[in-house]
Amino acid sequence: MAVDVPSGFRFPAEWERHKQTWIGWPERLDNWRDNAVPAQNTFEEVIRTIAEFEPVTVIVSANSWTQVRERFKDNHNVRVIEMSTDDCWLRDTGPIFIVSRTGESSCQLCGVDFVFNAWGGVKEGCYVNWDKDAMIAWKILELERFKRYVSNLVLEGGAVSTDGQGTLLATEECVLHSNRNPNWSRDMIEKELKLYLGVEKIIWLPLGVYGDHDTNGHVDNLCVFVGPGKVVIHWTEDKEDPQYERSLRAFQILETSRDAKGRSLSIHKLPVPGPFYRTELEASGVISTSQAVDRKVNERLVASYVNFYFANNVLIMPSFGEPWDSEARKIFQSIVPERQIRQVAAREIILGGGGIHCVTQQQPEDA
Amino acid sequence: MAVDVPSGFRFPAEWERHKQTWIGWPERLDNWRDNAVPAQNTFEEVIRTIAEFEPVTVIVSANSWTQVRERFKDNHNVRVIEMSTDDCWLRDTGPIFIVSRTGESSCQLCGVDFVFNAWGGVKEGCYVNWDKDAMIAWKILELERFKRYVSNLVLEGGAVSTDGQGTLLATEECVLHSNRNPNWSRDMIEKELKLYLGVEKIIWLPLGVYGDHDTNGHVDNLCVFVGPGKVVIHWTEDKEDPQYERSLRAFQILETSRDAKGRSLSIHKLPVPGPFYRTELEASGVISTSQAVDRKVNERLVASYVNFYFANNVLIMPSFGEPWDSEARKIFQSIVPERQIRQVAAREIILGGGGIHCVTQQQPEDA
Repeated sequence: MAVDVPSGFRFPAEWERHKQTWIGWPERLDNWRDNAVPAQNTFEEVIRTIAEFEPVTVIVSANSWTQVRERFKDNHNVRVIEMSTDDCWLRDTGPIFIVSRTGESSCQLCGVDFVFNAWGGVKEGCYVNWDKDAMIAWKILELERFKRYVSNLVLEGGAVSTDGQGTLLATEECVLHSNRNPNWSRDMIEKELKLYLGVEKIIWLPLGVYGDHDTNGHVDNLCVFVGPGKVVIHWTEDKEDPQYERSLRAFQILETSRDAKGRSLSIHKLPVPGPFYRTELEASGVISTSQAVDRKVNERLVASYVNFYFANNVLIMPSFGEPWDSEARKIFQSIVPERQIRQVAAREIILGGGGIHCVTQQQPEDA
Repeated sequence: MAVDVPSGFRFPAEWERHKQTWIGWPERLDNWRDNAVPAQNTFEEVIRTIAEFEPVTVIVSANSWTQVRERFKDNHNVRVIEMSTDDCWLRDTGPIFIVSRTGESSCQLCGVDFVFNAWGGVKEGCYVNWDKDAMIAWKILELERFKRYVSNLVLEGGAVSTDGQGTLLATEECVLHSNRNPNWSRDMIEKELKLYLGVEKIIWLPLGVYGDHDTNGHVDNLCVFVGPGKVVIHWTEDKEDPQYERSLRAFQILETSRDAKGRSLSIHKLPVPGPFYRTELEASGVISTSQAVDRKVNERLVASYVNFYFANNVLIMPSFGEPWDSEARKIFQSIVPERQIRQVAAREIILGGGGIHCVTQQQPEDA
């Protein structure tokens, strides 16, 4: 049987116009501390901020539907949908939307559904059962009546960044990891990504952010496109920080890389915030189970300004309550002067293992 | 606080153009025999028949989503959505859609969400918990981004039939029942129906179909509009049949009634099929629980040709494998000569307490 693969599609950049944003709702008490209340309040702020700029669909469990619907009853740009999940990371569990290059396809917009294995499978993943999360991309595409293309590659949306013009950024640490795609060569993976995402060139960075065991080094914590030929990188000048060497190696590759259009890249350094560590109070608020990774006291948190989100006319970045917040904001403002910059205090999301980018998934306009 | 009520809307007749049909999926084993398999096969036939003529959205539990999605994988007109339910009767649990009369409203189409109490509340209802069913209308309207109007009246969609031109048919037995609206006078109920459904005239028939304890005499088993000024009625010439008196009393009222436009009604008699009784095999296949009404052996089934469904260009009627089937078909064909007539063997739906009409809900076109 012939495999059904997309043809004539491209993977739009996040800064292109969105139809809406999809976002999950944090509920699992073995990952989100204190009955998930602080996380839910933070997610509410992320959702309300995005909804100032574009419609948001929030997917929640049947049990939480009424409560979440009531929470946003004043906001007509927020839609709440019942959908079963294992956790709330729509960046990684949602579909990757691709759009027709020419407008001649029967569908202007469709979605790619890669395999999800909870960031590492049975032994190394973040939770032991991910049946529900594995269905989310399919369910969203079904709900919106979009065509679904199925790839056998294990890949999360946070593992790639695109310029919308044929170039993809990814880390070897994650996408080539034996807990994702042990039987795929780099060449096979490149071919699959090019086929399903309509890209021509992949720039491989060796390692992601230090301590990012959850995702095995997702590129969206380390280095992402902010415009054609333009990236931001998680950067420290502190040679004692184990992040230093990781960022430097990425920088050296980026310096000598060309994108799919043959351009060299302008590289903007964003300061590493913190370092921050999980407090005893924070660790004790999580109900430890055998179902999910332990959240240990004093472990270094994966905090990164790179983990921001573009919505229509805005860039939504994390803040951590420290001086680097304003420094990072200035850098973003200089890179995207035409956009508003908004900050959301993101520590509660960081505690759960991700960032603002990780909890969102943009649906591009199909025009 | 001012109550938000619809203004400038009308309740379209079922024979007007649909955008799609909503339908539930039978799953509860204390109502559907033999693990619900025969019912599911019948629902599949209803869904496939409708989907030949218009899109269908099937709502199913999280547990069944994959299986049902796979069942219809060959059919691009069928969409499968995860939504929690207590049972599958979208006619009664779904929203009643109303459309703008003038096209000047901010929304062309919106929905009314009446109170659902499982056809009679804690003591007399069909099941003891209906939390999930009570949310369905709201969830569907939210999903489709339609405005929702909330009425405090207990009403199911099967309790009313409209001509789309300001007239409503209902039975006193159901809508005025003390297990629905004990504190509402007839006058108050009339006002509420007129306000929310945009109708001007209500024709009250005293009683529904004999033995219809489940719905307390839903009008959609007894008598419904099939065109402006035109109704069909469940009819027997057998004076020994307890149905005889019920149909006669309705007929006498219909004969002397005028609709909202001042027209008298042409009344078309559809033969009472059967009578049919629940067999021992059928009764024993239901897992009896304290959660739902018992399905007893030898009880008379509420089988009615009136319980049919209009989809675009088609009339889908039940068949029961008896000579009346072709008689009823001829009557329908003479009433709606421009439509295809399709028959689906409906005994399995009847066993669960309803008919083809009860499991559907049309969403009108909004143009």
